[in-house]
Amino acid sequence: MKTAILTVGTEILFGQIVNTNTVYLTRELNNLGFDVLYHYTVGDNPDRVTEMMEMALKDVDVIITTGGLGPTQDDLTKEVACRVFKDELIMNETALEAMKAYFTRTGRVMPENNVKQALMPSRSVVFQNDAGTAPGFALEHDGKYILCMPGVPREMYRMWEISARPFLERMSDSVLSYRMLRCFGVGESHLETMLLPLIDGQTDPTIATYAKEGECTVRVASKRPTKAEADAAVDEMVAKVDEIIGEYCFSHDNEDLVQVVADKLLSKGLTIASAESCTGGLFAAALTDIPGISASFMAGLVTYSNEAKMRDLGVSADTLEKYGAVSEETAREMVEGLYERTGCDVCISVTGIAGPGGGTPEKPVGLVYIGFKYGDKCFVTKKLASGASRKWTRNHTLLSMLDIVRRNI
Amino acid sequence: MKTAILTVGTEILFGQIVNTNTVYLTRELNNLGFDVLYHYTVGDNPDRVTEMMEMALKDVDVIITTGGLGPTQDDLTKEVACRVFKDELIMNETALEAMKAYFTRTGRVMPENNVKQALMPSRSVVFQNDAGTAPGFALEHDGKYILCMPGVPREMYRMWEISARPFLERMSDSVLSYRMLRCFGVGESHLETMLLPLIDGQTDPTIATYAKEGECTVRVASKRPTKAEADAAVDEMVAKVDEIIGEYCFSHDNEDLVQVVADKLLSKGLTIASAESCTGGLFAAALTDIPGISASFMAGLVTYSNEAKMRDLGVSADTLEKYGAVSEETAREMVEGLYERTGCDVCISVTGIAGPGGGTPEKPVGLVYIGFKYGDKCFVTKKLASGASRKWTRNHTLLSMLDIVRRNI
Repeated sequence: MKTAILTVGTEILFGQIVNTNTVYLTRELNNLGFDVLYHYTVGDNPDRVTEMMEMALKDVDVIITTGGLGPTQDDLTKEVACRVFKDELIMNETALEAMKAYFTRTGRVMPENNVKQALMPSRSVVFQNDAGTAPGFALEHDGKYILCMPGVPREMYRMWEISARPFLERMSDSVLSYRMLRCFGVGESHLETMLLPLIDGQTDPTIATYAKEGECTVRVASKRPTKAEADAAVDEMVAKVDEIIGEYCFSHDNEDLVQVVADKLLSKGLTIASAESCTGGLFAAALTDIPGISASFMAGLVTYSNEAKMRDLGVSADTLEKYGAVSEETAREMVEGLYERTGCDVCISVTGIAGPGGGTPEKPVGLVYIGFKYGDKCFVTKKLASGASRKWTRNHTLLSMLDIVRRNI
Repeated sequence: MKTAILTVGTEILFGQIVNTNTVYLTRELNNLGFDVLYHYTVGDNPDRVTEMMEMALKDVDVIITTGGLGPTQDDLTKEVACRVFKDELIMNETALEAMKAYFTRTGRVMPENNVKQALMPSRSVVFQNDAGTAPGFALEHDGKYILCMPGVPREMYRMWEISARPFLERMSDSVLSYRMLRCFGVGESHLETMLLPLIDGQTDPTIATYAKEGECTVRVASKRPTKAEADAAVDEMVAKVDEIIGEYCFSHDNEDLVQVVADKLLSKGLTIASAESCTGGLFAAALTDIPGISASFMAGLVTYSNEAKMRDLGVSADTLEKYGAVSEETAREMVEGLYERTGCDVCISVTGIAGPGGGTPEKPVGLVYIGFKYGDKCFVTKKLASGASRKWTRNHTLLSMLDIVRRNI
């Protein structure tokens, strides 16, 4: 099944917004086993949008659009879709009611111009918008399809998952099955080298490696006539991959590391607390992003200043004076103090130099100490996240902390 | 001057790479006062690349391409550019020498197939590649131009700065100036309605509104013969826009809200501490993302459990029992306890129901109380963040907290 992704919106052509929708949809379509032939981005100009759609229809089976479904005058995707797919807009009462309910639920008055958003192509399958006002839709003409979704990423992601992806899955003739093996603590070229004997000469299942922000992912995919066959081929290959890289792999199902850690804590009934300096609350924020984690995560202390380290964790003034805030000794006293304070089963602490300032030859930017305590196990790990930005150092430190918890509980 | 950006490369259509070249070039072209009419991304397919170029030439004066200049067989941008711009490839001795010098400089032997990279359109202006092997070029036909650059971002950025941008600057007859006014606490339709008297009938400066994850941005832009004229026109319009929406606007220069808050805290020499429940450390993590904030941010307490709220902030068991953890009373005791504990100039607390579980008819998901204390000012604000997801509720709460700090210090 061949597809094209069309982004409608002047703001992207001004260069102020990154087209994350297209990145997301491209990945999703590839994962479904659909080919993506083009990306187009065009402004709020009906003639150009028409031209793009007509050009795409020569090659592709499905056009996916985002943007241009808003309530303002320059939002025109629906009108153009009707022109190209030979339909007309009519008021969709269900969509109108849903929109009114949305405004009531969020305690606001619906502006009159929002009514325009409930006009839908007469033959379309309407996709409800659970996260905003503009509904989306799928429309068919001559065996070709257009799927239109809103441009606000949050609204689009949700509509994609709930409505658009299932709609496309029903259209496909072969079934693609894939698993994403997520790894931490190993570089992409090393991973690829290890897997080369499996990758060489493979046509199905395929094995591909990707690097992303300090993590690596191995994608094992197979396209077969039935789901059972595709699943079996993937599972068999995953077992082989696992024999080689199992140590680094934290998920076989594309879960985030934080989700894996949260699941493990919850299933084991363990409580956890954190004491953070250089990450400034990132660990606590990441873990509390997981619904239901309140059964495990009890407390986090962001002891950014030395005073806070002493007052809230009982780090001694001597230690700070003698070894410095960024030291193995401080990390150890932080995690011990955290345990004394909270009594949690698992305690983790971190102190480091996130940069860009504050580094010295002895303690360069990127130097991080992570303290960990669980039962009798209590240790401090030194990490050097080198040569990167503050954001990268903080994020990589967060992943290191999560990986330490994952490996040690 | 109208432009289109064409990205050639299959890897982007697999969804594993973000098209950062296009983001960069779009911003640069806009800053030069060029209009970007389209973005296209297409795979290594000569017919499709040809079709894209021919379509673009109907509307635009300049096509900018990245990618497809490599040494392998599927690198085809030069061949297609010659076909569309009626030229032929010949060996460019200068480019060949530069390439040989590059290999010598980096201590490697030039593979034979790299010679292909020194074939250039006979009429082209060649752009030297200082950071890699593939030269770029500009080619003219019938008063229209194509500029081709390599796809490796590092090589492209450098070629753009040294050769391509100066080439275009010599072609431009006007200068664009713009400012991005970022707003919080107001929806896009409401913003547009307020600004309608200014927007209606405007051709230059132009005013446009954009929505992005709970925020809105107003872009004011003007294109004039000189930079001074464009700047003056923008500033005059920004003053008018400000009179109408000034209350919501936190930056005139496209800064993030957290950056604005950090700057304000640092410039006033104020210390700050946070006590978070539902946001679980997001506020602390966001603020500590800003370099140098250690002069202001002292400590954060993530009091996720009731026990932590009592132990670390002195919230009374009575209050938790009588009013619940998510209540005005608890938020107030949290911020008061935080002040007692840390003595920071500015203290902020938050407690709420991030969902998806835990909501009741009286206390629905999205209900949040934010406590604030600065000097004699001490209050609790109730918010109902009615977003779809836990992530959105937490992020929107974070922005609300930052906005409260911004407005009250």
